[in-house]
Amino acid sequence: MTEARLGPGAEFDRIRAIATALGSRGRALGDDCAVIPDEPGTLVASTDTSEEGVHFRLDWLTLEEAGYRAATSALSDLAAAGARAVGVFTALTAPRAATTADLVSFMNGVGDAAESVDGVVLGGDLTAGARWSATITVMGRAERVMSRRGARPGDVVYVTGRLGGARAALEAWLEGGAPDAASRAAFAHPSARIGAGRWLAAHGATAMLDLSDGLAGDAGHLAAASEVRIDLDLEAVPVHPSVVAPDRALFAAAGGEDYELLVCLPAGSAYETAMGVPLTRIGVAAEGQGVRLLRDGRAVALPASYNHFG
Amino acid sequence: MTEARLGPGAEFDRIRAIATALGSRGRALGDDCAVIPDEPGTLVASTDTSEEGVHFRLDWLTLEEAGYRAATSALSDLAAAGARAVGVFTALTAPRAATTADLVSFMNGVGDAAESVDGVVLGGDLTAGARWSATITVMGRAERVMSRRGARPGDVVYVTGRLGGARAALEAWLEGGAPDAASRAAFAHPSARIGAGRWLAAHGATAMLDLSDGLAGDAGHLAAASEVRIDLDLEAVPVHPSVVAPDRALFAAAGGEDYELLVCLPAGSAYETAMGVPLTRIGVAAEGQGVRLLRDGRAVALPASYNHFG
Repeated sequence: MTEARLGPGAEFDRIRAIATALGSRGRALGDDCAVIPDEPGTLVASTDTSEEGVHFRLDWLTLEEAGYRAATSALSDLAAAGARAVGVFTALTAPRAATTADLVSFMNGVGDAAESVDGVVLGGDLTAGARWSATITVMGRAERVMSRRGARPGDVVYVTGRLGGARAALEAWLEGGAPDAASRAAFAHPSARIGAGRWLAAHGATAMLDLSDGLAGDAGHLAAASEVRIDLDLEAVPVHPSVVAPDRALFAAAGGEDYELLVCLPAGSAYETAMGVPLTRIGVAAEGQGVRLLRDGRAVALPASYNHFG
Repeated sequence: MTEARLGPGAEFDRIRAIATALGSRGRALGDDCAVIPDEPGTLVASTDTSEEGVHFRLDWLTLEEAGYRAATSALSDLAAAGARAVGVFTALTAPRAATTADLVSFMNGVGDAAESVDGVVLGGDLTAGARWSATITVMGRAERVMSRRGARPGDVVYVTGRLGGARAALEAWLEGGAPDAASRAAFAHPSARIGAGRWLAAHGATAMLDLSDGLAGDAGHLAAASEVRIDLDLEAVPVHPSVVAPDRALFAAAGGEDYELLVCLPAGSAYETAMGVPLTRIGVAAEGQGVRLLRDGRAVALPASYNHFG
């Protein structure tokens, strides 16, 4: 059980209510700083903002789902680093009209996401603002820290899971409809691939990142950081079963926010799963730069990827 | 020099421009996670949001000042923990109309604040939103981690610096005027008392926090966490020279966001400075609970402190 030791005040009553609701999913909230436990492995950290109207809408998701998704999108960066989760800090901005129950709902989602990868809520901050926004800072430890750099010509390129599910849900909502259960789950309850990321780091991965902007765009980041070209075979892209677009592979390759891992492994490697998560070979790294999407050996135009400032 | 290794895209051009502007004040931005250097001391962390319209206004501060102040308010939590700074993560939300130069200005302020305490910008995130908002997560290391708990009856209570300067500036602006240079500087360029905090931790401090809500409110947090009563002598409160209110001490005691340290030291201690920062004895801890503001030995009503949800 967590207890926040704070003086009187409505703001502090809210923090106390959140600490009580988090229970064993949280650490002693209320101190100026949280102590990060000293354990084996290199400490890594990352920060990620999820904003109402930009990253989620509350006519699509419950507050608990919005919190779960915000935390998972941040935890996904730990997976890409090959790290296990230590914990998360949540700076939550809520509209003035939000009730304590609303704040607790959002933080229950954050706490569930942290718990799902054996992490805890280490601390946070609470602010009133125009709309919901959460900046989640994640901390983890890695035996071998992975980055986007390190891919070499000849490496094979894999992706975890299936792509396009989150985009399928998004497009259904944007068209005024309702997504099917599977794509809705992909959007509302993505998985941070912590276990798979650690397994891949331990099995010789040369470079890794998580798919937030979309396969095509994110492969471009890996190519730029590693100074290689990435050739992706569209026919090999594992497409989420909910995707019904005319060109399913291109739809999946352009869709963002699947939070699957894109990983390079040495030539000759042949894996089909990583810690129970499907692993699909979708391309190769080569001398050069940029990304080519190939179908029947011919380049297909890159679809535009999602861009908050676009 | 820092270089962000990212693929093409307007959002990534902005991150590249920020990385270039930060120079030696930043670390390699663009990876999913930043590696936290393994050094002596216990790692501590905290997160803090500064939002336009709640914590600052851009008709009062330049973007660079807003960034400096946002980072300092977060770094101040490290000071309260007795920690030195390692670095900061900045999740920056900017209006869609913000230019790359605007983003660079804000981040120059963050970089300057980090550099002023020998820290660096370790990473960040960039989002478009309705208005400016920055969530700064700070990381530091402490030989002896301080918290709000630990004060004992009989301890003497000190405060660093002078109080009420930020409030004097705020009230001048709210009344439609302009603050004098000294109070404006207190608001726009506060100091994170990192050096003083470490000195106090090394000199036997029993409990410590930084003054963000105001002396009266924050003393209440320390009292609650330490399970003591705090008696404060209003006549001893060191008041910022810009304060001209009829009751200067009460004005200063109710003013927030000075980012000075409130600290308890063992009975009998007698210090006047901590690493060059003035240290003033303003009260004692006693058996009991809550805070009493005393004048001529008589209790004065607690002024309401600033509350974002109030």
